[in-house]
Amino acid sequence: MSTPKTRLTTFLEKCRNRIDADLEKQLSTSGNGSDRLQQAMRYSVLGGGKRIRPALCLAAAAAVGQDEESAIVPACCLELIHAYSLIHDDLPAMDDDELRRGRATTHIAFDEATAILAGDALQTLAFGLLAEAPWLDNHTRLAMIRELASASGHLGMVGGQAIDLESVGRSLTIEQLEKMHRHKTGALIAASVRLGALTAPNVTENQLHALTIYSQTLGLAFQVQDDLLDVEGDTTVIGKPQGSDVARAKPTYPSLLGTAGARDYLSQLLDASLASLEGFGTEGDILRDMAGYVVARTH
Amino acid sequence: MSTPKTRLTTFLEKCRNRIDADLEKQLSTSGNGSDRLQQAMRYSVLGGGKRIRPALCLAAAAAVGQDEESAIVPACCLELIHAYSLIHDDLPAMDDDELRRGRATTHIAFDEATAILAGDALQTLAFGLLAEAPWLDNHTRLAMIRELASASGHLGMVGGQAIDLESVGRSLTIEQLEKMHRHKTGALIAASVRLGALTAPNVTENQLHALTIYSQTLGLAFQVQDDLLDVEGDTTVIGKPQGSDVARAKPTYPSLLGTAGARDYLSQLLDASLASLEGFGTEGDILRDMAGYVVARTH
Repeated sequence: MSTPKTRLTTFLEKCRNRIDADLEKQLSTSGNGSDRLQQAMRYSVLGGGKRIRPALCLAAAAAVGQDEESAIVPACCLELIHAYSLIHDDLPAMDDDELRRGRATTHIAFDEATAILAGDALQTLAFGLLAEAPWLDNHTRLAMIRELASASGHLGMVGGQAIDLESVGRSLTIEQLEKMHRHKTGALIAASVRLGALTAPNVTENQLHALTIYSQTLGLAFQVQDDLLDVEGDTTVIGKPQGSDVARAKPTYPSLLGTAGARDYLSQLLDASLASLEGFGTEGDILRDMAGYVVARTH
Repeated sequence: MSTPKTRLTTFLEKCRNRIDADLEKQLSTSGNGSDRLQQAMRYSVLGGGKRIRPALCLAAAAAVGQDEESAIVPACCLELIHAYSLIHDDLPAMDDDELRRGRATTHIAFDEATAILAGDALQTLAFGLLAEAPWLDNHTRLAMIRELASASGHLGMVGGQAIDLESVGRSLTIEQLEKMHRHKTGALIAASVRLGALTAPNVTENQLHALTIYSQTLGLAFQVQDDLLDVEGDTTVIGKPQGSDVARAKPTYPSLLGTAGARDYLSQLLDASLASLEGFGTEGDILRDMAGYVVARTH
């Protein structure tokens, strides 16, 4: 009998291998276009990463009794959107980061113009691939495109990044901080779970609602843990300079609630996230494990 | 009886008013997200512009006997993609332009980070809107999303921008210059015509093929005329500094063929573009007028 740790480890490893193989295929270079641009796209996407969003997508598909095969392309598209957002966030005009996942960021490894274009093209690729996702009917593909656009656009992820930039050096209330994170990271994490659930043509409104609550609390938990890691983590483990949020006077959960308060809040979010899965049997176990993993991760 | 000039002028004005009204509606600000980001999106899209891509889309819909209503949303999405590409092209890391359509470029009017994000969000909005375009069935929406992604991604427009950046200061052959333009501007112009044609569920392969030839020759003609305007035009009329390509040592048609050679080539392209429309009756007249307009325009 496997313990939750090894069950999750097995799932994450299998998921990462499968997603990486698919991303590698989708990003194979072509004689057309610009070689350098395509190299930058590959560098940004294939340079490691935990593939948490694809894993959530596959785990949500499993939770609604769906074969993982139908969730592979949506899972890859979520990762492409995530990768594009990281490239642009790291640019000098934005967070100005030189290190990501322990490697040079894209604009350092290539140049700023190529990094901007690589991000642009990865976003395009995500929508293009979703429009031809195998195993899914036309109705489902369109529902996924609408969901992904809504979660990643000006009222979702990109809007959150804009709010984040406006917040540097300002003091925020906990409500304002939460609004920023709901947009910046929460929306795409919620979309990851919802896209997985949408692979089942017979998914019920109740199931979608429960999984949305799950993903929203998980998304916030993910951010609280991220902030805690920035205060408590180790640069070599987290892959970016520890203390970088503090150095930029970015508002964080620990700065507003204290470290102990942030830990308490994280624990409440974990409870709420698990409670939302009560209607699911063992088919929801991977999602339960994922919630535990997000709050316990060290990088 | 109206002459071609007034027929086209009437069509372009009607089209611009209709598209601008629809874009205004799609970009209405919301209490959610970031106000500044949404202002930057509006500034970039609603600041004038000839709306040539939407006009081509509507004219192509008319050429296949389709009501313009079904082409409005695709036409707006083409303009959103075009607007996002202009914002990013103007950035300091790219063409570093401070003037566009006679106004400050987005990163000058706002800031660089906001400009990057506004471009990102406009791209997202284009795919999101296309996924819910009224009057079109699911199959057509998906075909349009695939077409738009292919034309604007790393093997289309963004790939062309990367090739363009790599070409600055290098000497190119006419074939290399043409490859760059086919990607950078040609692909989206071709998509504008093809999306218009796809609004007709019964469009034939022959019609699509003829319109593709039309749009490809028109796209090249557009670029040759752009290059000629940069050599011969007037800053106050073209809305950007005259001679800016020459100042950056960008390869152009006049620099490779001479001004007279470029004019000859432009005339050949116009002939080829009109010849491709031979199978169309009066319903193709606006497309014919558009071809004449593109080569005769002064800005």
